[in-house]
Amino acid sequence: METNKTTGIVETKYLTFAQPPEDLALESGERLGPITLAYETYGSLNEGRTNAILLFHALSGDAHAAGYHQGDNQPGWWDGMIGPDKAFDTNKYFVICSNVIGGCMGSTGPSSVNPKTGQPYSLDFPIISIKDMVNAQARLLDYLGIDKLLCVSGGSMGGMQALQWAVSYPTRVRSAIPIATTARHSPQQIAFNEVGRQAIMADPNWNNGGYYSSTPPTRGLSVARMVGHITYMSDASMAEKFGRRFKDRVDNEKFEPDFEVEGYLQYRGDNFVKRFDANSYLYITKALDYFDLENGKGLNQVLKGVKAKFLVIAFKSDWLYPAYQSREIVKACKLAGIDATYCELNSNYGHDAFLLEIEEQEYLVKHFLSNVIESNGNGKS
Amino acid sequence: METNKTTGIVETKYLTFAQPPEDLALESGERLGPITLAYETYGSLNEGRTNAILLFHALSGDAHAAGYHQGDNQPGWWDGMIGPDKAFDTNKYFVICSNVIGGCMGSTGPSSVNPKTGQPYSLDFPIISIKDMVNAQARLLDYLGIDKLLCVSGGSMGGMQALQWAVSYPTRVRSAIPIATTARHSPQQIAFNEVGRQAIMADPNWNNGGYYSSTPPTRGLSVARMVGHITYMSDASMAEKFGRRFKDRVDNEKFEPDFEVEGYLQYRGDNFVKRFDANSYLYITKALDYFDLENGKGLNQVLKGVKAKFLVIAFKSDWLYPAYQSREIVKACKLAGIDATYCELNSNYGHDAFLLEIEEQEYLVKHFLSNVIESNGNGKS
Repeated sequence: METNKTTGIVETKYLTFAQPPEDLALESGERLGPITLAYETYGSLNEGRTNAILLFHALSGDAHAAGYHQGDNQPGWWDGMIGPDKAFDTNKYFVICSNVIGGCMGSTGPSSVNPKTGQPYSLDFPIISIKDMVNAQARLLDYLGIDKLLCVSGGSMGGMQALQWAVSYPTRVRSAIPIATTARHSPQQIAFNEVGRQAIMADPNWNNGGYYSSTPPTRGLSVARMVGHITYMSDASMAEKFGRRFKDRVDNEKFEPDFEVEGYLQYRGDNFVKRFDANSYLYITKALDYFDLENGKGLNQVLKGVKAKFLVIAFKSDWLYPAYQSREIVKACKLAGIDATYCELNSNYGHDAFLLEIEEQEYLVKHFLSNVIESNGNGKS
Repeated sequence: METNKTTGIVETKYLTFAQPPEDLALESGERLGPITLAYETYGSLNEGRTNAILLFHALSGDAHAAGYHQGDNQPGWWDGMIGPDKAFDTNKYFVICSNVIGGCMGSTGPSSVNPKTGQPYSLDFPIISIKDMVNAQARLLDYLGIDKLLCVSGGSMGGMQALQWAVSYPTRVRSAIPIATTARHSPQQIAFNEVGRQAIMADPNWNNGGYYSSTPPTRGLSVARMVGHITYMSDASMAEKFGRRFKDRVDNEKFEPDFEVEGYLQYRGDNFVKRFDANSYLYITKALDYFDLENGKGLNQVLKGVKAKFLVIAFKSDWLYPAYQSREIVKACKLAGIDATYCELNSNYGHDAFLLEIEEQEYLVKHFLSNVIESNGNGKS
């Protein structure tokens, strides 16, 4: 029998919180509302409502994790992992992915209209945290009528949300797969984000965030994205992909990019500014930098009440979220009595490996999810 | 007997090439002239003229390597390594350091006056290479009456110049100490430089290089320097120095730097723009990126005619110029029959280690130089 390996045509849906409270109490003490979340779902919720998996995107991702939007050639950002017979098997599981608040892909963010002014929020948008993102997702689950998740998972910032879910909603999470992530941003991780922010804010078009009716700070945002892309790849993967090869010059001007690697970064930067909002970049990177699950208490203390089983995945060549940060999570899990498995995968792709190393991750995730279902005895779809 | 451990008050000197040809044939095919080189010397040349050591600075360095300028509190950038009884012992050796061409610290560069126009060169300054820098230094040695160097040494870009000297002037170099360097820039190294260049060129004040009579592109240059500083430190040294500590806020504005590491980067960026020319940053980083000593021939082939002994030093935590690049140099030396010693030092300082790890480097350099002198039997001062 042939298996259809694609999720097919999918659509982004939108939930605007309608049940009181219609707004969200943020970690900063402020309130944000009204709130819309963009989300997608793949597969079907079973009768027992026990087969739901919530996936989280990284810094620049969105709700479109799998399948194709009508007319698109490119599938969602984690299509290799989500679909019939794939790691997150849509024949078995009901998979949900939502765009984070603070973003610019359909969820409420700094480019959304501030109801108080009728204008985009811009910098009047409140500072949001990973915890706030997670609390907004919990409201989406309430709306979908899902009390308990079979699994939460994501890479990079998605992994932080998985960790935060397990801690914030211990009774709603049966398992967590944080990938290529950390329980707290290191000063080096903060520093790279800060360079991106400074590049955006150095662009006169940023205009202190007020550019929604003028030219946006595309040069600054492009530089920010270029820095990002260097940190997503490894020294070895860059050497393999580009070497020291030259590209064709366009204008034959001094300091025009002439190495292939320079052309690649420029291409990535130029494309990014077409789809991403510079203020969202500021807000979301700040949420990353402020993330500190430990918060001075010791990570194993914070994890004490967690009931989820853990599968922690890291990649040897990932120097942006180095494997030692994943090992710290696993160590704290063990100290907190959590059933945690650690896998450090050999990959040359650097941080991008969580998006590219499908086969090995699929194997690990499939077995892990089967074990979670068997050990609880109530998760069969 | 007490030893005076400081080089004392020093002065930068300037040589303008006066012997024909008064200009320099560049690797690009263009000619550059007139040429001035800023340089400093420490210690005394012996009668046999056999005790001269030429040291090279890195990207943002200058000729002021040791001692104090009148009225200054800070000594030169490698003062820990240069002076009486230090690694480069000025009781024994005559130490020379010159600012590279293309720079902005007294040597001819894009901010110098173009004799054809009477205005600063700006982007009319020709593209220069590490080889061009070295050829200019050879003219300085001719002027000083030094035929043969006891040693050439430097870290980072300084190490590239040391390598280039050994290859370009095999009969003039008795030993070389390249530190924390590479024989060719990798795509990752190119990529980081390209981000810095794009940050500068994204600043409207850059004005296609024509800013010498207006406001210079300080915001862009500051971002470039911030990227640089992240790559000079290690994850571990940042964690040790800053952790996740917050600094006092100045304006209490959103996206104002609030972590200590952010304040440090801002401080470094702000200071850099006071002393460095943005166009020089473009020209010198391009010289770094174009550097490829191997040039398709195989490094061991290129090193075949080299007569110098080598001491190659790398640092385990240096991820900008990773130790494997130094090991490649050593391997090629061995294949070329060169007497080469390799030392990989344990240091947490990352790439900055070549400036900070004085004690271990001093020990290695002192012994190496003694051996060079003994084995040739003609180097005693």
